[in-house]
Amino acid sequence: MSSPAGGNSSARPIAIIGGTGPAGSGLGLRWARAGESIIIGSRDAKRAEEAASKTRQKAGVNANVSGMENADACAAADILVLTVPFESQAGILKQLKASITEGSILIDATVPLAASVGGRPSRPLGVWQGSAAQQAAELVPKGVSVVAAFHNVSAELLNGDDPLDCDVIVCSDDPDAAQLTRELAAKISGVRPVDGGKLENARIVEQITALLIGMNIRHKGHAGIRITGLPPNAYR
Amino acid sequence: MSSPAGGNSSARPIAIIGGTGPAGSGLGLRWARAGESIIIGSRDAKRAEEAASKTRQKAGVNANVSGMENADACAAADILVLTVPFESQAGILKQLKASITEGSILIDATVPLAASVGGRPSRPLGVWQGSAAQQAAELVPKGVSVVAAFHNVSAELLNGDDPLDCDVIVCSDDPDAAQLTRELAAKISGVRPVDGGKLENARIVEQITALLIGMNIRHKGHAGIRITGLPPNAYR
Repeated sequence: MSSPAGGNSSARPIAIIGGTGPAGSGLGLRWARAGESIIIGSRDAKRAEEAASKTRQKAGVNANVSGMENADACAAADILVLTVPFESQAGILKQLKASITEGSILIDATVPLAASVGGRPSRPLGVWQGSAAQQAAELVPKGVSVVAAFHNVSAELLNGDDPLDCDVIVCSDDPDAAQLTRELAAKISGVRPVDGGKLENARIVEQITALLIGMNIRHKGHAGIRITGLPPNAYR
Repeated sequence: MSSPAGGNSSARPIAIIGGTGPAGSGLGLRWARAGESIIIGSRDAKRAEEAASKTRQKAGVNANVSGMENADACAAADILVLTVPFESQAGILKQLKASITEGSILIDATVPLAASVGGRPSRPLGVWQGSAAQQAAELVPKGVSVVAAFHNVSAELLNGDDPLDCDVIVCSDDPDAAQLTRELAAKISGVRPVDGGKLENARIVEQITALLIGMNIRHKGHAGIRITGLPPNAYR
């Protein structure tokens, strides 16, 4: 991640669980373009391979993107990004528990929206643990660090070619995992990472997505957020 | 508010309840500079008058700023801005109920922080009604519209001279009251108003403040937010 040249760090692949959805495929595309080695995970290996092929076409000839069934993707990487609908999150984590290697980092981008239970996408659901990310932290094996990030980035814009106009707020109780995630965020053109503090703060960051979705519905936009007023060292 | 010339609308004063605190005095200063007629309210009329005098000195000779005891301030205006600590909000509203005129607009900027009960200012408190603004809506007389706004603007920066770099998300169930509030927000140099939807969304906007306070503590900044990615008509 932190190679001095800022180049290809394919020695450490990134597995995107639920990587065939809009958010996962958009993150995969952006990171593939930045030279990262990407494994797109799906419940269905064939779908994963098709998505990987599409991402390779969009990202360019040198892109390092493969597709695997979710459990194989977990076993092949120690940086995992979870981009699934909230209603699938707990089930998938339970199912993948045995495949997640100790020492892995799980970057959770899950947003608990009422749409998961037939309600509005502009309303958050209350999660007993406080947030979807904290629910994830309860479900991963021991020795796996959970980071909450990438909730507020428009999936549609991620799948495009333009630089984004959005900051990524990163919350975690593991400072090293948070820093690695901030470095990954900074690899997306136009994105600045912001230290959001402890994992418990994910409950606020997740809810911001519901607010942005409401704005998108009312104004037909692709809303994102920028954090202003912090010194430069807060954005790395 | 919506005079075609965009000039002095002192025919309709703005009463800032709790206006001697940093947020209230900062808003009063900015609006006084924009030509608005401001009444600074306080529990103590003498303190209110002292704060008004200070604001007049900072805002310039033409500034129209007076100070009154809170109940008198309410009776003298139909645009009320509530900038009190969360622990005082319910008590003050109950006490002022008889002084608030039917048809008034109450703009609530209260943020329910754990600091109100001896906890951290970077953690929100849960409010049974959903948000401090919804608690306010339960406590105002019938025929008074509640708007939630100005939670995320740095009080310290409001009290300065530079344009702000922050959007104000406005939530209300009354579209006219929301529009008037967005017009007031736009009178603060550098601020763009953003339609945040219904009052229930105040719970998210209030919590953002706790997140920003955490960032300020970690990075010694004056964090604010900008909403990106919406069409121009979403910012007015």
